[in-house]
Amino acid sequence: MESFSIFSNFIYCESSEELICKKNSYLIVLDGVVEGIYQELPEKYKNLKLYDYKDKLVIPGLSDLHVHAPQYQFRGLWMDMELLPWLEEHTFPEESKYKSLEYASKAYDIFVEDLKYSATTRVSAFATIHKDSALYLMNALEKAGLAGFVGKVNSDRNAPDILREETAESINATLDFIEKSKELKNIKPIITPRFIPTCSDTLLQELGKISKDYNLPVQSHLSENPSEIEWVKQLVPKSKSYADAYRMFGLWGEEKTIMAHCVYSYETELELMKNKNIYVAHCPDSNSNLTSGIARITALMDSGVNVGLASDVAGGEELSILSAMKNAIKVSKLNKRLSHSEDRSLSFAEAFYLATYSGGSFFGNVGSFIKGYDADIVVLDDSSIKTTLKDELSLQERLEQYVYLKPSDRVFAKFVKGNKVF
Amino acid sequence: MESFSIFSNFIYCESSEELICKKNSYLIVLDGVVEGIYQELPEKYKNLKLYDYKDKLVIPGLSDLHVHAPQYQFRGLWMDMELLPWLEEHTFPEESKYKSLEYASKAYDIFVEDLKYSATTRVSAFATIHKDSALYLMNALEKAGLAGFVGKVNSDRNAPDILREETAESINATLDFIEKSKELKNIKPIITPRFIPTCSDTLLQELGKISKDYNLPVQSHLSENPSEIEWVKQLVPKSKSYADAYRMFGLWGEEKTIMAHCVYSYETELELMKNKNIYVAHCPDSNSNLTSGIARITALMDSGVNVGLASDVAGGEELSILSAMKNAIKVSKLNKRLSHSEDRSLSFAEAFYLATYSGGSFFGNVGSFIKGYDADIVVLDDSSIKTTLKDELSLQERLEQYVYLKPSDRVFAKFVKGNKVF
Repeated sequence: MESFSIFSNFIYCESSEELICKKNSYLIVLDGVVEGIYQELPEKYKNLKLYDYKDKLVIPGLSDLHVHAPQYQFRGLWMDMELLPWLEEHTFPEESKYKSLEYASKAYDIFVEDLKYSATTRVSAFATIHKDSALYLMNALEKAGLAGFVGKVNSDRNAPDILREETAESINATLDFIEKSKELKNIKPIITPRFIPTCSDTLLQELGKISKDYNLPVQSHLSENPSEIEWVKQLVPKSKSYADAYRMFGLWGEEKTIMAHCVYSYETELELMKNKNIYVAHCPDSNSNLTSGIARITALMDSGVNVGLASDVAGGEELSILSAMKNAIKVSKLNKRLSHSEDRSLSFAEAFYLATYSGGSFFGNVGSFIKGYDADIVVLDDSSIKTTLKDELSLQERLEQYVYLKPSDRVFAKFVKGNKVF
Repeated sequence: MESFSIFSNFIYCESSEELICKKNSYLIVLDGVVEGIYQELPEKYKNLKLYDYKDKLVIPGLSDLHVHAPQYQFRGLWMDMELLPWLEEHTFPEESKYKSLEYASKAYDIFVEDLKYSATTRVSAFATIHKDSALYLMNALEKAGLAGFVGKVNSDRNAPDILREETAESINATLDFIEKSKELKNIKPIITPRFIPTCSDTLLQELGKISKDYNLPVQSHLSENPSEIEWVKQLVPKSKSYADAYRMFGLWGEEKTIMAHCVYSYETELELMKNKNIYVAHCPDSNSNLTSGIARITALMDSGVNVGLASDVAGGEELSILSAMKNAIKVSKLNKRLSHSEDRSLSFAEAFYLATYSGGSFFGNVGSFIKGYDADIVVLDDSSIKTTLKDELSLQERLEQYVYLKPSDRVFAKFVKGNKVF
């Protein structure tokens, strides 16, 4: 495990209220864990390896709570469609190609390479139904030095033949996937029913059991689009809400659980959302691109619901969680102006909190420079932003400008759990 | 005047309906004007200089119908505010610095340098009230090879002392500004009352006269924010709408006129908007950032109103009109989902039409590769986008992916009126 110090400018948070900014300071990492930040380098740490990132901006690694790795190849394409036809015409046909391990390896290598150089250090990813390809993705992420979860997708109804499993086959493949990923250190399996419409009651129930038996987290989709919500009502007529349908099958916060989107959750399923194991993966880009709507994120936060940010590639066009920060702020303002004047806009500090501390907590002590946190560290270089104001800007202002102007740039350097990724 | 041919892949439009895509073809430019696009290079043009942009994407230059050049230094900053306090606390203090020609030249050089390498070839820009700085900006743009308009801003009320002119002084400076910019070839003056709140009735009336006397176009702001609209009602009590206030003072479409924002125009001033000399500068980024709302662009287009796109730096964070295209599509979907289900979403082809053909028409025969159009040409390199699908994508799909993923990248090459900018 790595121990070192970094000299630079640090920005992080310990709550949603404000950013903590420490200029020209030393961050000490011992055995992959943050020890502290000091104005002067303490005598006892003077022998540690020192990384000098003078003039740069250093932030905690960002967490992407929801991304479809097999959709990365068609990011930014076919955006003139809504969710259900978009799945049918483009997403399902592309995902079916991952039956071929050869295709999967070529495509996942592109995905992992771009993720590696982004500001994201933790990820919770969907693969496809194909177990061997999903295992390839896990190994590729681990090898690249990233951390998080990958799910083999489960789907036994309402999908084209080539993406539909037999129920028993789906369960057995999941158990095998869990078994075969045991040797990995930083990438772990996560139970991944695609969403209620594509999973039978039996399959959902069995997945709930597996999650409990193996203490595995769960990820799925929730309340993204009005047509989808209507469909779930028909498919699970006894459920009181979309969330309630997951609850009925033991997939609601028994273990840590990510629910992507939750665009319509505040109105219909708020009480269930307050379960402390439930994390909302807010996907502002995807929810705009697929005409889904705007999740009432500040209202959910103010009600005590856990929220993190997500790219939702390829509903969202790009992997950058810095971009998700900026677009979460933008859509929160439109939600306030157009729909719910009583909701607050998301501030810049809050968006940063969601991308780091709040989303990171899904993965453990991740997303801050508090003592004891995993040393997930991202170094940003804002020198390409030319402005006459440069010397007057505070660290927070420099970060805001970077997020608005350079969200998709490769970052300057990155550490995950104290290991230097590049 | 330049004559040459380009071998590449061309994408342009002649209407809002569809993109015209020509693969591996030859674009012929004679004396700075488009002659035609050919599958084979015609014999008679074989002696022309040939630019080989094989595998690239070539589109017409984009038009930015509304940008505040002096706000460029604080792009992407202080986004947690709405329009009026944002003007008061940040915009006015920064603009007041342009009294110093030394500061203005340093700042405008940064602006012009970044604009030069963007996909924009035509621009209608606000400077500040300071005549000499505005003339510096015009010269810098011309020198960089760009084309369009610059306005010396007029403002004689409701602005801080340092940005408020005496009425007579404002008029005289405008006349001098027009006189002194006569020698420029590609950058022309435009009458620029900041907006109704900062211009007295007398000043507006005089500016209307100057526009008519000198046949100069006009640019200003319209119906951006509910508080601003309310204020205009109080300031011009006899006006039937914000647009009507401009009309009363001879500033409504007597000459070609750009009105930025028009977020609330469809409901309150649609009939006046149909004047063929009025151009809506749609600013999706700014309207999100400043919590202004969403302009009903497709409804305006379907009513026969001229629409173009704009960056509105620094309400919008960046100069890229490719980014404005993508965000115009996104907010049109949110408008449809949240506010006006009867409105269409903006398609990708339509967004491209707005950025090129429609916005370009403000400047003349600009924004297409139709015979007789000015040779404003932008070359895009999408080779940095890695995807397994590359070989299967149509030109339109490649362009869509570029716009969604690389909107802020420097473009590969650029021509304005047939002159190679770089």
